[in-house]
Amino acid sequence: MADLHLTSATNPRLKGLVGLRKRRTRESEGVTLLEGYEELALALEAGVRPRSLYMCEELMLNASRQQDVVATARDAGAEIVTVARAAFEKVAYREGPDGFLAVVPSVQAHPRELELPENPLLLVAEGVEKPGNLGAMLRTADAVGVDGVIAADPVTDWGNPNVVRGSKGTVFSVPVAAASTAETLGWLVEQNIPLVAATPDTDVMHTDVDYRGPVAIAVGTEKYGLTDEALAAATTRVRIPMVGQVNSLNVATSAAVLLYEAMRQRGVRG
Amino acid sequence: MADLHLTSATNPRLKGLVGLRKRRTRESEGVTLLEGYEELALALEAGVRPRSLYMCEELMLNASRQQDVVATARDAGAEIVTVARAAFEKVAYREGPDGFLAVVPSVQAHPRELELPENPLLLVAEGVEKPGNLGAMLRTADAVGVDGVIAADPVTDWGNPNVVRGSKGTVFSVPVAAASTAETLGWLVEQNIPLVAATPDTDVMHTDVDYRGPVAIAVGTEKYGLTDEALAAATTRVRIPMVGQVNSLNVATSAAVLLYEAMRQRGVRG
Repeated sequence: MADLHLTSATNPRLKGLVGLRKRRTRESEGVTLLEGYEELALALEAGVRPRSLYMCEELMLNASRQQDVVATARDAGAEIVTVARAAFEKVAYREGPDGFLAVVPSVQAHPRELELPENPLLLVAEGVEKPGNLGAMLRTADAVGVDGVIAADPVTDWGNPNVVRGSKGTVFSVPVAAASTAETLGWLVEQNIPLVAATPDTDVMHTDVDYRGPVAIAVGTEKYGLTDEALAAATTRVRIPMVGQVNSLNVATSAAVLLYEAMRQRGVRG
Repeated sequence: MADLHLTSATNPRLKGLVGLRKRRTRESEGVTLLEGYEELALALEAGVRPRSLYMCEELMLNASRQQDVVATARDAGAEIVTVARAAFEKVAYREGPDGFLAVVPSVQAHPRELELPENPLLLVAEGVEKPGNLGAMLRTADAVGVDGVIAADPVTDWGNPNVVRGSKGTVFSVPVAAASTAETLGWLVEQNIPLVAATPDTDVMHTDVDYRGPVAIAVGTEKYGLTDEALAAATTRVRIPMVGQVNSLNVATSAAVLLYEAMRQRGVRG
């Protein structure tokens, strides 16, 4: 069945998996880690071709039912490696692993590689650091049907295992890209896509703006918001109204409020 | 200056602080932990009266400027305890503590203790477990100007230090309450407040409903959503449109999308 069976966490192959937790290693090898049955199923459905699948039947919730994903991964060209429980638990980065850990090609697209429809809706996340926030934004982008999420001047890469995890695998189904802020802004101008930038420093409310045409919505870091460079390039600056004592929403929450307002105006009824 | 100075993490007072990480201890003592200068400043502004303030000047970002909060805490009746750095770092629950840790009275209100305006907007979070999600919901509730957030059948209490932290201190400025689901639903009926329940199992979109009158918006757990009990009691069931591959938004994201739609309809321009 399996191409290989490993029992010791000190095996060089398994040590290599742990090495992929480092961004530098992921970038030099062009791959990242994808953990979990549901996440892997979603990625396979989105056309991802895993290099290898490390599995541990003893940890699976339902090993017989979950063979479908193993078969699909094998058909997609993945080498299948079975791993003994103790070793698997050591290389898994999740608490309570479910017996599925795959090595998949990284998502490294430049914005120009995005395939845009006639009337695109894009999200630009500038400098966002927390993997959980990037993951949550991808889940929202998936739900809203966003045509691309661009990490501008990214601090955290799309291949970060906690982004993959927080995204529930949507990092492989939502078109994502990464570039410097300057490149991203230049590309939007080339494409004639207006930029709506979220900032507290404007009187224009986010509900005052028309999102029915091509549009890119930009949010910045939790701490400092968008850079001056991005704000200066914005076609429109909008703020999300806040009447409380705290002056900033969570960045993933802000992105959701903006994207759902765009979806409402576009009349999308999912 | 200080009422007391402690140097050892094995001091019973400091061990008592660590004990407050347990819900049972918090509930029996009626207090919780509040960490961080910004959070403490916000809580003091909201009228919270700390029992005691543990501080470490060496860890403060700006000890001289931050004396304002020490003075306000003292005026509010707090005992001031200085703690040596190594000991403080052991009792702090945050990584990179900023030298402020207070013991404050728990928020334990029943929904009937909420002071409602004429046209209340409420959020009911049923069974939500993750402290980060409860904290994020409070930040949003603060921004939207929600009149009360009720934890129904709570798995995690409002005093959980990670809720306090995730909420950026808004747990002390947003009116919060907790009760069983049955009590919460009964109280809403008594108050004549319609319940709008979020669920994927309806054709009514969240933007199809009128939120301009008194209304409580309910969201359930990440995994299972609202209970049948809560859904059966709902005046209206609504769903948030989703066109992607994943069938659920993060619960704090869902709450934000619903609350900002209500805010938009109510014409609140913060």
